[in-house]
Amino acid sequence: MTNRACIIAVGNEVVHGFIVNTNSAWLARELGELGFDVAYHLSVNDRESELVRRIKAALDEGLFVVTTGGIGPTVDDRTRQGAATALGVELKLDHDALAKLQERYAAMGRKFPEGSERQCMRPEGSKHIQNSFGTASCFLARDGTGGIAALPGVPRELKGIWAEELRAAIIEEFGLHERYFSREVRVFGIPESELNNRMQQVLETPTAEGAILVDDAVIRLRWRVLARDQAGADEALQPLIDATKNELGDLVFCEGDVSLEETTVRLLAEKGLRVACAESCTGGMISDLITDVPGSSDVLLESAVTYSNDAKQRRLGVKPETLEAHGAVCRETAIEMARGIQQTSGADLSVSVTGIAGPGGGSAEKPVGTVWLAATMGGETKAWRLRVPGERELVKWRTARTALNTLRLSALHGRLPETIAYWIAPP
Amino acid sequence: MTNRACIIAVGNEVVHGFIVNTNSAWLARELGELGFDVAYHLSVNDRESELVRRIKAALDEGLFVVTTGGIGPTVDDRTRQGAATALGVELKLDHDALAKLQERYAAMGRKFPEGSERQCMRPEGSKHIQNSFGTASCFLARDGTGGIAALPGVPRELKGIWAEELRAAIIEEFGLHERYFSREVRVFGIPESELNNRMQQVLETPTAEGAILVDDAVIRLRWRVLARDQAGADEALQPLIDATKNELGDLVFCEGDVSLEETTVRLLAEKGLRVACAESCTGGMISDLITDVPGSSDVLLESAVTYSNDAKQRRLGVKPETLEAHGAVCRETAIEMARGIQQTSGADLSVSVTGIAGPGGGSAEKPVGTVWLAATMGGETKAWRLRVPGERELVKWRTARTALNTLRLSALHGRLPETIAYWIAPP
Repeated sequence: MTNRACIIAVGNEVVHGFIVNTNSAWLARELGELGFDVAYHLSVNDRESELVRRIKAALDEGLFVVTTGGIGPTVDDRTRQGAATALGVELKLDHDALAKLQERYAAMGRKFPEGSERQCMRPEGSKHIQNSFGTASCFLARDGTGGIAALPGVPRELKGIWAEELRAAIIEEFGLHERYFSREVRVFGIPESELNNRMQQVLETPTAEGAILVDDAVIRLRWRVLARDQAGADEALQPLIDATKNELGDLVFCEGDVSLEETTVRLLAEKGLRVACAESCTGGMISDLITDVPGSSDVLLESAVTYSNDAKQRRLGVKPETLEAHGAVCRETAIEMARGIQQTSGADLSVSVTGIAGPGGGSAEKPVGTVWLAATMGGETKAWRLRVPGERELVKWRTARTALNTLRLSALHGRLPETIAYWIAPP
Repeated sequence: MTNRACIIAVGNEVVHGFIVNTNSAWLARELGELGFDVAYHLSVNDRESELVRRIKAALDEGLFVVTTGGIGPTVDDRTRQGAATALGVELKLDHDALAKLQERYAAMGRKFPEGSERQCMRPEGSKHIQNSFGTASCFLARDGTGGIAALPGVPRELKGIWAEELRAAIIEEFGLHERYFSREVRVFGIPESELNNRMQQVLETPTAEGAILVDDAVIRLRWRVLARDQAGADEALQPLIDATKNELGDLVFCEGDVSLEETTVRLLAEKGLRVACAESCTGGMISDLITDVPGSSDVLLESAVTYSNDAKQRRLGVKPETLEAHGAVCRETAIEMARGIQQTSGADLSVSVTGIAGPGGGSAEKPVGTVWLAATMGGETKAWRLRVPGERELVKWRTARTALNTLRLSALHGRLPETIAYWIAPP
């Protein structure tokens, strides 16, 4: 029989819309991985009677109720009492949990705040769940086929508690011999429709559940299977990962939860390549992304954000004749920018972009989204004309990722790539 | 009597957690502004029987139900039928809406897709609500004290429909003579606790509801009142806005929904000031933010992202002796960077940052978060030592905003400011 669950977020701030509730989606995915069928999410305010009614209705349906919020030290925090009443048991003080919390305050040299004992109360018969990330202790209780777990509303705390103790406690209490294991690869540079066609067979395999998740130009291919452990899951998943890499080649930039900038910086560091950028329409976003990765100082020498034509000439040696003859957005300017930054910085590899991000500046010949991207490596220079769809911020976003992908592919193959993304314009 | 509402999001993707539901929070705020008391948010999958049960329970309580999702053309889209059944009426085809939709397809030269008539069906007696942002037409129905409005799940469409027609239709149908009007100011450079103290009286005014909303270092002060129109509201709100500006002076950077970068770029353009940046630890984020604002090419000449010491010397003329004697993160380097970029670019105003974003690179003397920020204007140069709290991305984020604020204050007063943000380190 499938275990069923629901998620109840408690708090006026959520119900009034002043906080966007990301916890419920996160918990739904985690519960899904454990094999629970999630029936619904509910957000309610902190009135105790309403809370009791909602929790009781869920327990009566045999659901496992995961609550977030309302377990702090103030009088507004009603989830502990609401859960106890719905379960039909008393709320009791957990003396061990209280002693530990008092010790933590003492260790910090701080006075134990009045009323904070409240945070160590839980329904009789429930299991204490440790919270190392905050002061409110949590609990897990079974009731028929379902039960209740109570978590705080702060996303960082909630995720920490889940990983540290709650997840394992749920597996044990519900006797989950099998759960979902998943693996994913991430892809850049191919449209979703084409990916769908090429990967259809692997996605629709009978041996696992496949899914495509799109974060703009970064596409994630993900499979999951019910198994007892990772090794068991990998028997089904490894052939799918292998088949995907085989089919898509260097369109796959990583396996697992790794960003394009992280992959790129790691690969450049591994190959000992030092890079420099010359940016116009991206305005610094390429180097901003690179420098989000710790350790990027081993890889990035500099980026010249040359927004004005004068800066393009002075910093990068773009010729006035080039700008006069073809304007700032053309093959020649992009090439001179890439060569200029490479030569003056001494980088092994350089990338440049110049384009029209919009909303102004477009023309019939060069509409908004026209971008020239050039790269230089080992004496070779290449340039690509892109037609990047979208508005200003999207043009910047997509162009910056395309530049990162150019660096990644160059590092991977030891030379400049042919194709960098699907928005290359026809010649 | 207060009108009460609830929000029901329909769709398996939401319930399984693959989409974070931002619509419910947005709608809750909008309904709140119209004076509705929002009782709860619910996310359910697209099973029709469940949908009918949930909508009916809400209508029985006298609630106004706003649904999102499930009104598209496929067989999974069950919200139209669910609403009709819960209302106890038939689902009817809106021939006018269908004719208009068919015209739109014809105008695009596209064939009308089979089954798309479904998107023009609505419960008998409901009011048609135009959707200019997609193909699914919407509706609004009254039922006792409550009713139903059905919207699509795509955030962009939903917000467009709300603003274009639905909001006004709700005001009319519910006879909302009064609704909430709000105004806000945004503040940068002062900690929340100090702001709280200084603004307590104005925030706790009996004439309006005040609120503090914090987005890291950007703090929003917001007041709302029930009124018949903006002019009526302004009688209560204008004195509060005036008192706030009076108390906080140039800590207030804007009124309304304007970002710090937008304010800064507008002000620089207004004063005819051209700027250049020299960035180390922010990695290009300052110029990335500036170039997010359309028209920033009138203001930004360039940014030199000089990550390596060599680039600092070559591009900006930082002296090797300076780097040798004090390292890259010191007053002298920051000043030489700011002067270097100002002199070579010919900018009216320049800003530089050099610091330790972490996680590596810190020391006892210069821990992670140590940043030197310098600025040059009209022959004057100043430098500030910052102790920016947080991890790598937060250090970058806060430093970049502090640099923007330095540019803003300089433009505002026509000379370099004394204080730029509260994380200036004691000398």
